[in-house]
Amino acid sequence: MLIVTRPGVTAEEVDAIRERAEARGASTCVARQGPRAVIACLGEAVELDRSALAHPAIEAVLPLTTPYPLAARGLVPHAERAATVLPLGDDPRARLGGREVVVIAGPCSVENAAMLRETAHAVRRAGAGLLRGGAFKPRTSPYAFQGLGLAGLRLLAEVRRETGLPVVTEVMDPRLVEQVAEYADVLQVGARNMQNFPLLCEVGRVQRPVLLKRGWSATLKELLLAAEYVLARGNAAVILCERGIRGFDPAVRNTLDLAAIPLLHRETHLPVVVDPSHAAGRADLVLPLACAAVAAGVDGLLVEVHPDPAAARSDGEQSLPAAGFADFMRTLRPFVAAAGRTLAGPRPPSREAA
Amino acid sequence: MLIVTRPGVTAEEVDAIRERAEARGASTCVARQGPRAVIACLGEAVELDRSALAHPAIEAVLPLTTPYPLAARGLVPHAERAATVLPLGDDPRARLGGREVVVIAGPCSVENAAMLRETAHAVRRAGAGLLRGGAFKPRTSPYAFQGLGLAGLRLLAEVRRETGLPVVTEVMDPRLVEQVAEYADVLQVGARNMQNFPLLCEVGRVQRPVLLKRGWSATLKELLLAAEYVLARGNAAVILCERGIRGFDPAVRNTLDLAAIPLLHRETHLPVVVDPSHAAGRADLVLPLACAAVAAGVDGLLVEVHPDPAAARSDGEQSLPAAGFADFMRTLRPFVAAAGRTLAGPRPPSREAA
Amino acid sequence: MLIVTRPGVTAEEVDAIRERAEARGASTCVARQGPRAVIACLGEAVELDRSALAHPAIEAVLPLTTPYPLAARGLVPHAERAATVLPLGDDPRARLGGREVVVIAGPCSVENAAMLRETAHAVRRAGAGLLRGGAFKPRTSPYAFQGLGLAGLRLLAEVRRETGLPVVTEVMDPRLVEQVAEYADVLQVGARNMQNFPLLCEVGRVQRPVLLKRGWSATLKELLLAAEYVLARGNAAVILCERGIRGFDPAVRNTLDLAAIPLLHRETHLPVVVDPSHAAGRADLVLPLACAAVAAGVDGLLVEVHPDPAAARSDGEQSLPAAGFADFMRTLRPFVAAAGRTLAGPRPPSREAA
Amino acid sequence: MLIVTRPGVTAEEVDAIRERAEARGASTCVARQGPRAVIACLGEAVELDRSALAHPAIEAVLPLTTPYPLAARGLVPHAERAATVLPLGDDPRARLGGREVVVIAGPCSVENAAMLRETAHAVRRAGAGLLRGGAFKPRTSPYAFQGLGLAGLRLLAEVRRETGLPVVTEVMDPRLVEQVAEYADVLQVGARNMQNFPLLCEVGRVQRPVLLKRGWSATLKELLLAAEYVLARGNAAVILCERGIRGFDPAVRNTLDLAAIPLLHRETHLPVVVDPSHAAGRADLVLPLACAAVAAGVDGLLVEVHPDPAAARSDGEQSLPAAGFADFMRTLRPFVAAAGRTLAGPRPPSREAA
Repeated sequence: MLIVTRPGVTAEEVDAIRERAEARGASTCVARQGPRAVIACLGEAVELDRSALAHPAIEAVLPLTTPYPLAARGLVPHAERAATVLPLGDDPRARLGGREVVVIAGPCSVENAAMLRETAHAVRRAGAGLLRGGAFKPRTSPYAFQGLGLAGLRLLAEVRRETGLPVVTEVMDPRLVEQVAEYADVLQVGARNMQNFPLLCEVGRVQRPVLLKRGWSATLKELLLAAEYVLARGNAAVILCERGIRGFDPAVRNTLDLAAIPLLHRETHLPVVVDPSHAAGRADLVLPLACAAVAAGVDGLLVEVHPDPAAARSDGEQSLPAAGFADFMRTLRPFVAAAGRTLAGPRPPSREAA
Repeated sequence: MLIVTRPGVTAEEVDAIRERAEARGASTCVARQGPRAVIACLGEAVELDRSALAHPAIEAVLPLTTPYPLAARGLVPHAERAATVLPLGDDPRARLGGREVVVIAGPCSVENAAMLRETAHAVRRAGAGLLRGGAFKPRTSPYAFQGLGLAGLRLLAEVRRETGLPVVTEVMDPRLVEQVAEYADVLQVGARNMQNFPLLCEVGRVQRPVLLKRGWSATLKELLLAAEYVLARGNAAVILCERGIRGFDPAVRNTLDLAAIPLLHRETHLPVVVDPSHAAGRADLVLPLACAAVAAGVDGLLVEVHPDPAAARSDGEQSLPAAGFADFMRTLRPFVAAAGRTLAGPRPPSREAA
Repeated sequence: MLIVTRPGVTAEEVDAIRERAEARGASTCVARQGPRAVIACLGEAVELDRSALAHPAIEAVLPLTTPYPLAARGLVPHAERAATVLPLGDDPRARLGGREVVVIAGPCSVENAAMLRETAHAVRRAGAGLLRGGAFKPRTSPYAFQGLGLAGLRLLAEVRRETGLPVVTEVMDPRLVEQVAEYADVLQVGARNMQNFPLLCEVGRVQRPVLLKRGWSATLKELLLAAEYVLARGNAAVILCERGIRGFDPAVRNTLDLAAIPLLHRETHLPVVVDPSHAAGRADLVLPLACAAVAAGVDGLLVEVHPDPAAARSDGEQSLPAAGFADFMRTLRPFVAAAGRTLAGPRPPSREAA
Repeated sequence: MLIVTRPGVTAEEVDAIRERAEARGASTCVARQGPRAVIACLGEAVELDRSALAHPAIEAVLPLTTPYPLAARGLVPHAERAATVLPLGDDPRARLGGREVVVIAGPCSVENAAMLRETAHAVRRAGAGLLRGGAFKPRTSPYAFQGLGLAGLRLLAEVRRETGLPVVTEVMDPRLVEQVAEYADVLQVGARNMQNFPLLCEVGRVQRPVLLKRGWSATLKELLLAAEYVLARGNAAVILCERGIRGFDPAVRNTLDLAAIPLLHRETHLPVVVDPSHAAGRADLVLPLACAAVAAGVDGLLVEVHPDPAAARSDGEQSLPAAGFADFMRTLRPFVAAAGRTLAGPRPPSREAA
């Protein structure tokens, strides 16, 4: 059963409804969807109806017809494909999911203050809306550079202060979620951890948007169920990220599945971003894939940028040079316009001149 | 060894060069690349050089450094991504591979005269440049409708006369290549036949452009080698088509691999088209995938259109309704413009009013 | 509708039944299944029943509940997993599909008389039941060795006379089916041609068993429907071959899908063989995979053997040396026994000494 | 650099060598391989040689030619394919990796004491060597049964006392590794967590063998690098498990990649087990796939067994009924013998009668 409240429901009313449902044997989880709350009531034998629960804040009691009731589109009516709009960080211009397209750019890993600062300024000037950068890096080999850790988080926070760009960074360890959330505006869960359920539960408990990457061989249904783990713990701010699936052709690192964008828009109200850098694994494909993602209706892009890709400590072969990022954005803009959207950014153009 | 001639070489000169190479133990095959001819000399122990061959029409003798010398980009220098331009049919406006994007639209199979005529007029009015339609249909089940055969070809030729749209149709049987080539402007080799080598050799011998679809699980290298079979028989007009690769997610019929577009543009001078209808297997994904393909740099699109998709004898679930095709083109146009290209069409707008 | 006749039905009776069904608007195809004939009646609006057809040789009229009625298991009752037994060639000991396991061994391609003869004698001595060898080779590159063609067929026939081993060889071109059938005991349709429907129809018309290889990315349902094309043309002798599907791990050429063996045995009455050589793409995996296939219930194995793999003109890296083939068979035998089966061979051991 | 010590090296000697290497700028990790220690020295600019380190316990200093020096086969010479032998639990007869094949059987999840006890006794009687059972269950949906948790661990320990069967159970959360290790004899890391690096590091720090499942789309190289994470933290007891990779055919849940067995045996000294239950996703394929795995050289099998599969709370469709498990073992035994191996079990047959 799924209980949908009327708009403007209070936390106390939600608690009261949950209590009544739990008194009847259900276990419940709740998510906010815009002005409403949605309470999923679980339990094999639970049969509830509106009159039995008898609370004036209940608007509807629906059967559970989807495996991901909190992520499913059905509950949030839309006139068109625009999805839930999520604020990202403190700046009201940093948001994801409306008519705007956000470009999230930055280095694969935070290597030192200088390279991070240089990259951040370059991508902000060119129109990026958020800064990405890894402090904790999942690496296939235990002997590869694993990131600067806490020191990297501090550098990210410092550069955010300087540039105003909210920060997206990865968290891998459920024990570190709170610490990373102190520094980051958006918590990234990587493709390898899409079904790391203790981690999903932990990021579901903090009040930070979560950028959830699709696993290499995950179906879209599995991605949505992974999002549902986060939503069911009370964090309504989940961003889905397509980053390429495993394929058979050695010509690319992964196969970017752009059909995922319209398919997810039909299934869920959550915003969808694409990471063309990881999908392609080579810099020369990032621009055409980014343009294609925008044309397919994406809400945001995640792009790796480095001041000197040849010297990068990780993923250099797929990073755009910071010096060429303005060109990247220039080629991208007409496609954003063709899609009837605008580029989101934290700063008005007039301040760029300063 | 690869012998590249000077521009404007005559057929007699090419024959003379081949004779000299064959006298030295090579077997040869030749392809025209613009004004030049390229003669690939094969044979394990052949070592040729320019002086040994001593023919004034030879511009260069190169080592064979690519497995697909005739398809490889290297021999046809380009300032930008535009590829070889192929004329399609008699109308000079029907061509593929330049700055224009061609939309090839029509029904999955030719079912009868009325539906073909209705579809053809609708797609022409909306701006399609070619008509597609299957007369010989490869069907997974021996008990499914296999197409009208020769009667279907005749209907296609009739509707071409009426609409001026050149016709693309599939050929599956090497014994029928000549017959299909009498009626069709472009011969399609389907995904299942990408490595049907007797068929590739046969379409390599006729003077009709060949639209070669990538197999469900073919690498791009295998696709290029399949094209090389056609080129090596003397037919220089090959169009490569990405139509989705086999994936694991039941949400779509195939995974459209849009990275194939820029990757192929880097590897080959041949034009590249995309078939979003077969990839998606559902009509609601065709438009976003078509826009994405254009943004990724495609030279043409292959789109299934039917007057009444629900009543189609094959592939109805992925066909756009003819009545909605003008909307499809209207949404597509801004992306074509954003890519710095124009839509190709066989008829000037003034005749549309008539 | 599916008409099943009583055992021992004559050709005349089958023709009479077909005529009656066709008079009612059905198109029909027929296959022998043991002593019975099965007549599939196709056509959208056909509703037949036994009384309407009124022929004493009809045992049952069944609805078409499977997409591959002629291949489906249901019509041939079995006490255990043993499938249809197919005679292969003139020697009654050469057969496939009973309690025996047949090893089909030989070179990838017939290169010359000496190597073919040496290989054939070696594999016969070691216990192989059939000889494989390619005269027409499908090659990814148009510049690779394509086989000896007709000369290769003649060598195969010559070596058959010497060794008594029936011959399996590939046919790719529908125009050559009759010619190849004159020389070969079993016609192989390769993985690339699994859905080459004109070829399937052509091999369906000759009276030679067909060894049909699964395509690189074909589902088992698609394989069975491809077999159905052959069966529906009147050739009841189809052998299914699993030879590896396309995967993502560069460590092997293909992923051998051994679950296909029990799955096919549950779905179809046709015998199932496995080709570990092509799947692995490396000689050191052929033995363990062959043993595994036997343990999974396979009816036969297709193994590449060459007198000098390092000098092979194709597939040398996956060929077993002829000198080591007796060891291969020695390791295999205990697994054949563990599966409750015996190795089939055309000659009794006593003749080996001669 | 890789430092290999002489046999019988002491912990103090290893520490002394590490100090010397670290004084030269390397970071080190160490693993025991039989009587030797192997010290991997990492760091980009480190150039060490034996004389520079000058310690009598050093036998060799080797360049790092493999990405997984601790897992790689090279360091542990073998006359044949037998790998490292790992003791599992207290009973000396419970071990993995020698000439024996171990069957690890039990329910998908521990549901209650009765079903666990019934299953454990049934599998022990039939010859299983270890008991499997999930207390913490990774489930695709947040609303599915997630296991009994700590209560499940206690039940497992209780049943171990009764039956003498060592226990394998999954751990998903790095915070729970110590707790699970108190109860379990072998820690399982599931396919979804193959690249959960914080978890791998944590299980690398406890003294319990780790059964590491291959991810759905992981290459064998990635699996070996994941094992290397565990080995590099000091836990030398890693068991690799193939459990099916993601494929395109809906006929099975996953494609069991049996070539992984011989490939891993060539690459690594670690033992290899196979889980046919998860691969197939249907009970009727478990037996043929188990026999095939044994024939391919596997060191152990992981089989799901339930007293009443139809009533199972998870994975019922792929569980063997406990009542039929003796039959399963009976069919398996001849293949174990054919492979020249024996079935390992914790109790001699004479005690069975008691």
